Amino acid sequence: MGLEVCKAVDAAPDLDLVALLDHDDTRASAVEAGARVLVDFTNPGVVMENLRWAIEQGINVVVGTSGFTTERLDEVRGWLAGRPEVGVVIAPNFGIGAVLMMQFAARAARYFDSVEIIEQHHPRKLDAPSGTAMHTARLVAEARRAAGCPPMPDATEEEFAGARGTDIEGVRVHAVRASGLIAHQEVLFGAAGETLTIRHDSLDRSSFMPGVLLAVREVVKRPGLTLGLDELLD
Amino acid sequence: MGLEVCKAVDAAPDLDLVALLDHDDTRASAVEAGARVLVDFTNPGVVMENLRWAIEQGINVVVGTSGFTTERLDEVRGWLAGRPEVGVVIAPNFGIGAVLMMQFAARAARYFDSVEIIEQHHPRKLDAPSGTAMHTARLVAEARRAAGCPPMPDATEEEFAGARGTDIEGVRVHAVRASGLIAHQEVLFGAAGETLTIRHDSLDRSSFMPGVLLAVREVVKRPGLTLGLDELLD
Amino acid sequence: MGLEVCKAVDAAPDLDLVALLDHDDTRASAVEAGARVLVDFTNPGVVMENLRWAIEQGINVVVGTSGFTTERLDEVRGWLAGRPEVGVVIAPNFGIGAVLMMQFAARAARYFDSVEIIEQHHPRKLDAPSGTAMHTARLVAEARRAAGCPPMPDATEEEFAGARGTDIEGVRVHAVRASGLIAHQEVLFGAAGETLTIRHDSLDRSSFMPGVLLAVREVVKRPGLTLGLDELLD
Amino acid sequence: MGLEVCKAVDAAPDLDLVALLDHDDTRASAVEAGARVLVDFTNPGVVMENLRWAIEQGINVVVGTSGFTTERLDEVRGWLAGRPEVGVVIAPNFGIGAVLMMQFAARAARYFDSVEIIEQHHPRKLDAPSGTAMHTARLVAEARRAAGCPPMPDATEEEFAGARGTDIEGVRVHAVRASGLIAHQEVLFGAAGETLTIRHDSLDRSSFMPGVLLAVREVVKRPGLTLGLDELLD
Repeated sequence: MGLEVCKAVDAAPDLDLVALLDHDDTRASAVEAGARVLVDFTNPGVVMENLRWAIEQGINVVVGTSGFTTERLDEVRGWLAGRPEVGVVIAPNFGIGAVLMMQFAARAARYFDSVEIIEQHHPRKLDAPSGTAMHTARLVAEARRAAGCPPMPDATEEEFAGARGTDIEGVRVHAVRASGLIAHQEVLFGAAGETLTIRHDSLDRSSFMPGVLLAVREVVKRPGLTLGLDELLD
Repeated sequence: MGLEVCKAVDAAPDLDLVALLDHDDTRASAVEAGARVLVDFTNPGVVMENLRWAIEQGINVVVGTSGFTTERLDEVRGWLAGRPEVGVVIAPNFGIGAVLMMQFAARAARYFDSVEIIEQHHPRKLDAPSGTAMHTARLVAEARRAAGCPPMPDATEEEFAGARGTDIEGVRVHAVRASGLIAHQEVLFGAAGETLTIRHDSLDRSSFMPGVLLAVREVVKRPGLTLGLDELLD
Repeated sequence: MGLEVCKAVDAAPDLDLVALLDHDDTRASAVEAGARVLVDFTNPGVVMENLRWAIEQGINVVVGTSGFTTERLDEVRGWLAGRPEVGVVIAPNFGIGAVLMMQFAARAARYFDSVEIIEQHHPRKLDAPSGTAMHTARLVAEARRAAGCPPMPDATEEEFAGARGTDIEGVRVHAVRASGLIAHQEVLFGAAGETLTIRHDSLDRSSFMPGVLLAVREVVKRPGLTLGLDELLD
Repeated sequence: MGLEVCKAVDAAPDLDLVALLDHDDTRASAVEAGARVLVDFTNPGVVMENLRWAIEQGINVVVGTSGFTTERLDEVRGWLAGRPEVGVVIAPNFGIGAVLMMQFAARAARYFDSVEIIEQHHPRKLDAPSGTAMHTARLVAEARRAAGCPPMPDATEEEFAGARGTDIEGVRVHAVRASGLIAHQEVLFGAAGETLTIRHDSLDRSSFMPGVLLAVREVVKRPGLTLGLDELLD
């Protein structure tokens, strides 16, 4: 992932790649190179120390590393309090398409009688449904509760076990696994006489680069902590 | 359904509607009118008597009524033995699109590593999965067994109950229910680097009329008993 | 349409149908019945007189009639200036699904390299592409211009005339016509490694009723003129 | 392609890779290694000489090289006449999914009022529509002519140039180009009240390997010349 980011930054006409840090490189070289933004795709064991150091140096940070608990986020906020001009963006998902799919799903949720999620992945995947499907289902469920939507209509009386998928907070989720698939998700909304479908197809991790570049461009304008890409998308 | 058939026959340039029989009409009028084909969309309680009578009169019959057991079919074969020039077509489904979907699915089944079925219906439907989905799954499973296909790949270890659908003879089937849907089915085949999807969308029962007309045209050329539309399609 | 609206209002637990006006009914009966909202699905020849009268009577109005030019809208604004407590909602499209599709498309437009529109309709349709597809293309084109997006990539050198669809302000639009279709539209966005698809399927005009009811509920809270459903959706 | 084939053969439990010939390798080593089947993915300049030699040696051949004219095919038939026990399979497309899509499309063509083709590819593609789409359109058109189908219904009166796609022998074909796409095709059939859609998604050339292996397994059972995968698929 780190190398992909370097290539993407290097290819962007408005950005300069000034340093590339691997496991055994010293961070100081980033300061010498005049880095304004540090992109961290490392691991939960080292990311906190990287963040502390970068904030201290006045370098903005974009983080794709996982493992951020509420405690860790509070710690980052503490460091930022001492350097109010520094910006940090931490995002669990840099796929703009996936983030938009979830935003749109949350927004559409209250206007339809029914909504179900069908996710489709390669057969080597260990969990079903996918994390993205679970997260989408929860966003949709929350939006419907907030709007006071009634339960969805469903007259099913005779069901072969599992046919109607799994129930995530009242939203049915179906997980398809097949060779030839990569990572796909469909959110289907229905009301009398119409359906609205939002579908995301992800083929490889090059799809995360536009989100990383967006965060790099925005982090310098947003002091403090920003969580997720949502806010950066207008 | 009967009325729809009458309209469809009437509108077909190569067919003549010579009689329309309701509950209290006498069948004799069909003979007087010179009927060559009788179309029966009645109910299991009267269809056998209709068939016996029509075969006796030398009238070919197309039957969309349900409830045909092996015993009933044998009885019909017995009547036809005495009138070898008469043809009878009995079909559970006159939707040409649905019949083709099932044929294609059965044919493709052996060439792919994976196959799953996603059916989508209006939320007033009582059973899940649909009869068509169950039937398709069994055809696919049978074709795979016949070709000696290995089990499908699936590394799922952690599953929220029902996420992976129901298992019909080794084929996963997912049933979606939402307002705005009518009757839809997708059969998804996957192998390394590719997927093949066969999808049928049925909006109303006018979709059965081409199948009924096909049967009317073919039954006069096919003495004896024909089961299902499959044979009539080429 | 008028009758459908009456049924929908009548079926809504929080709304009362107090009057139903046909061609030859007198509007005064609406006042006597205590109408708070008038829903107008008439024709361009009479809608202005209906609006003038209702505003004068202090009745809020929801309008689905077409033919509103800038001049007509200014005239309505003039009448409303004298009755600042009255609300009027005029919308060209009461399909919430279609309106959301267009909103989402406009919002996603700037984040992807490519976007194309495929609309699919029954073969009795006279124009191609559909008005909704044209409108969506223009919204998308406008959003991309505003964000400074470069032209979309397209290396096509050899094209059979028409294969690449029609060009609406730089957005390719494809119009499919086939029996069995009703009214469908897909907006396909693509960037490296991913696609995002927003699809709307409309089966009948019952799909407009939730939008009409939403407007009826909202118009009493929104004095002045509101154009389109967009603002009413959050 | 050649290397991919070698890997695929090597990985197949019922096949042995006995030789791997590159540009400068001598074909004799294949004979020494006891090759029963030669797979040729070379170029039009050398394929004929390879074929002549292999047939002479009594080695069966599977050919994925392009450029076979009627004359070339006749020449191959001539060589085979002298070695009636040798089999040769020459196929323009080893993608089983694509071949099945075309077979199914040709078969369904006569039963529907309408059919249109939508192909979707990456934006670096030079031609529109794709060769596969053109070929599918011709197969469909031929099947409809053979069955005496009337022209498709289409009431379009006002068309923005190109909106209705290109006309290939009466079949409308639409070519979508967008980043994030690879190679996809949808054949949409419609009749009153229903549609049937056959869709193929191809992600990479690993999808050709099952077709190559099928041909390798079948060519030893089929003396003479076999053109295309169709016959090998039962």
